[in-house]
Amino acid sequence: MGEAVGDFGLIGLAVMGQNLVLNMNDHGFTVVVFNRTVSKVDAFLDNEAKGTQVVGAHSIAEFCAKLKRPRRCMLLVKAGSAVDDFIELLLPHLEQGDVIIDGGNSNYNDSERRTKYVESKGLLFVGTGVSGGEEGARYGPSLMPGGSAAAWPTIQSIFQSVAAKSDDEPCCDWVGDGGAGHYVKMVHNGIEYGDMQLICEAYSLLKNVAGCSHEEIASIFAEWNKTELDSYLIEITANILAHKDEDGSPMVDKILDKAGQKGTGKWTVESSLDNAVPVTLIAEAVFARQLSAMKDERVAASSQLAGPKAAYKIGNKDEYIESVRQALYASKICSYAQGYMLLREAAKEYSWKLNLPAIALMWRGGCIIRSKFLANIRDAFTNKPDLLNLLLDDFFKQAVDKAQSGWREAVASAAYSGVPVPAFSTALSFYDGYRTAVLPANILQAQRDYFGAHMYERTDKPRGEWFHTNWTGTGGNITSSTYNA
Amino acid sequence: MGEAVGDFGLIGLAVMGQNLVLNMNDHGFTVVVFNRTVSKVDAFLDNEAKGTQVVGAHSIAEFCAKLKRPRRCMLLVKAGSAVDDFIELLLPHLEQGDVIIDGGNSNYNDSERRTKYVESKGLLFVGTGVSGGEEGARYGPSLMPGGSAAAWPTIQSIFQSVAAKSDDEPCCDWVGDGGAGHYVKMVHNGIEYGDMQLICEAYSLLKNVAGCSHEEIASIFAEWNKTELDSYLIEITANILAHKDEDGSPMVDKILDKAGQKGTGKWTVESSLDNAVPVTLIAEAVFARQLSAMKDERVAASSQLAGPKAAYKIGNKDEYIESVRQALYASKICSYAQGYMLLREAAKEYSWKLNLPAIALMWRGGCIIRSKFLANIRDAFTNKPDLLNLLLDDFFKQAVDKAQSGWREAVASAAYSGVPVPAFSTALSFYDGYRTAVLPANILQAQRDYFGAHMYERTDKPRGEWFHTNWTGTGGNITSSTYNA
Repeated sequence: MGEAVGDFGLIGLAVMGQNLVLNMNDHGFTVVVFNRTVSKVDAFLDNEAKGTQVVGAHSIAEFCAKLKRPRRCMLLVKAGSAVDDFIELLLPHLEQGDVIIDGGNSNYNDSERRTKYVESKGLLFVGTGVSGGEEGARYGPSLMPGGSAAAWPTIQSIFQSVAAKSDDEPCCDWVGDGGAGHYVKMVHNGIEYGDMQLICEAYSLLKNVAGCSHEEIASIFAEWNKTELDSYLIEITANILAHKDEDGSPMVDKILDKAGQKGTGKWTVESSLDNAVPVTLIAEAVFARQLSAMKDERVAASSQLAGPKAAYKIGNKDEYIESVRQALYASKICSYAQGYMLLREAAKEYSWKLNLPAIALMWRGGCIIRSKFLANIRDAFTNKPDLLNLLLDDFFKQAVDKAQSGWREAVASAAYSGVPVPAFSTALSFYDGYRTAVLPANILQAQRDYFGAHMYERTDKPRGEWFHTNWTGTGGNITSSTYNA
Repeated sequence: MGEAVGDFGLIGLAVMGQNLVLNMNDHGFTVVVFNRTVSKVDAFLDNEAKGTQVVGAHSIAEFCAKLKRPRRCMLLVKAGSAVDDFIELLLPHLEQGDVIIDGGNSNYNDSERRTKYVESKGLLFVGTGVSGGEEGARYGPSLMPGGSAAAWPTIQSIFQSVAAKSDDEPCCDWVGDGGAGHYVKMVHNGIEYGDMQLICEAYSLLKNVAGCSHEEIASIFAEWNKTELDSYLIEITANILAHKDEDGSPMVDKILDKAGQKGTGKWTVESSLDNAVPVTLIAEAVFARQLSAMKDERVAASSQLAGPKAAYKIGNKDEYIESVRQALYASKICSYAQGYMLLREAAKEYSWKLNLPAIALMWRGGCIIRSKFLANIRDAFTNKPDLLNLLLDDFFKQAVDKAQSGWREAVASAAYSGVPVPAFSTALSFYDGYRTAVLPANILQAQRDYFGAHMYERTDKPRGEWFHTNWTGTGGNITSSTYNA
């Protein structure tokens, strides 16, 4: 079966797996690789991995035999039953102290379950978020490991070596027990959905309201990348907009406006519903993708449904462009504020000790949402570990205040011009709702008491005392204690 | 055990149960009642049911013995395990052809499961939505039964007798197999969440932007109730706003702005995520309740987070009030359009033959969302059974077009004045998105291909062909076929 030469084992040679292996090899680790379709192992060794120290294995038994103890076996396979299948295949070949690592986009509930299961077999389990796409995997991803805490010393050195660095600090730290790593990765992906949707809305206003060309918008994004918006996604958007197809026309015009969605955005929204945290921006981003996917229906509707009669005219073009930038920045702050609200509630729910500044650092580099801005978030939670909400941090409070007039202008301009900006709008409503001491929910509570005797609390009485009004004079005084219709 | 005199049996004597029993009694049916806390049975017979034909039972055995065959046993108990418990208690006392009916706010998945389970015991199961609150239950609820189709002939007469009537037609019809009845009730409740939130937003703009007093707003809602907005919720809102507390001050000012939420709104959003239908308005309504519940945090934030610098000035007050009305009407149309999109997808998913015009009729009277407007929805689906979207019906198309300038004004005014209108805004974004042939999702697809090699379809190639661009010139040509980060 061969000698135990491998520092690390990796199963799953799709693009992310290949690149992570090459990254580890660059850092001096000997990686043993295996793939379900075994021919891919040899193809990889003969091509991408030619001239490296990478070692191939042609069976699970050989894979495990070639690893030094404690064995570190990482799966980069499709999330779902394939992970469970490989765990079963690995178990007979592993010994106490060995670690199974799942680096796929697994649901945190599965990682919670698998941690318990693998630990029950006397082994250790890690569910880790891996972000950064193919380039991140190759040159430094963001890694968000959680699971069996005892596994961390075993994997820390290799994980932190290959991870992205931000100001010389690795974008990888231990997240927490059980499913914590995949939970944080899920929220990361949800925020990524939000960031991408915000960029789409900014692009749409620049194109359809300000009337900018692709070249102009490319330069605007390149300029924005020198401001507080400095981030990977803004940077690649500038590159994308500048990219020409072979015939010299803008590449983006050839790309169908029909976005796919995977599980993580949806899971984030589901978790926000479960934890009663209004993560509205990510929800709108998920819905926006769903609406984009109804391409044929939209094309049919576009010829039937009327838009605004009067064309909306912007004032000064540069000022308007700056308003759009402010809208993007302020909305983004609200989205991260919502994401951190969710992390805090989830930590309570699952008894995770989440290190909020460390999470900001993990996202600071390597991953898709990496940005300058995450350093400010890290500072906010470092300065005040019990900060209730990112919006209440001095830096962000002032940033939103400074941005709000442009933000309001951008949202209003979209309403007048018939350009959909669901994420900009919901962020603004969230900000205005969050800073409103008295919301109109008193009307709603009165309605519920009126038709369903659901009772309400009073502003002039202590919380927890419930009252019912006989609104019509004809209903009874019986209240809805057990049955709610 | 007594003679089998009962036409119908009902278990659960909270407010809804009591009222439904009295309603059935009024229609000449002899109802046998039981309650887990048995003393409630006698209390009911001695008080609310005094002088009626209602028969009490003090055990499940007696309850079943007193029912004529086929027995119709309805549960109006708290959704969840209590329903399963009572099913188990009933089963030994029932015979082939007997029907167990669950009228609680059960999750449709549970009703799907219970239908199969009860049928496996040789009996029939019905999961029925019951709406209309205490008054509806007493004088005519909307009933939405689904489950074992063979049960419908057994319960049709009594259900349609006690149900609300709209133009002499009962607001009750067979919805479909398994969980279909509770599914339709769930969507009803989700729409109810949306309607209530829309009313709150209208109230908020009238109060905070137009500066109307409670008395003015009460009259405005009373006036609106004579327009296309004619509906139960608008009517009671006018009454609520006119209601004075004992000290003569407006009752609504004494009610705490902290709204509770039960399962059904959240379930609707979860189902919309599962079916990839952008039911954005109900989602925002659920989130708005969650935000309202963070009362202490909002009060604290209100003194720290700044609102708009410049006060927003409306033009003509009457015109502005009309704009708010238009916003409410158009947003409501979008919400129902989204709800019907969800029903259509769910029907496909679960192989239910949902009768869309019949559902509009069931909601037309009796229930909380009853309105004139639902007659137009019924007409729309009667005239064109394969209507793709309510927004494409001529009546609604013209209604939204007529309303859109006021709607846009209302949303823009809210953005400028710092009043949160998440539901008005998301409805407008949905409308504008739905009628947009080319959304900015091309940028999003380009981003996904850039960082994750996710590939995209092209506008100039047939659908189903996928392309990858080597955006940076340095990445490989390998695409993300199995692993998605």
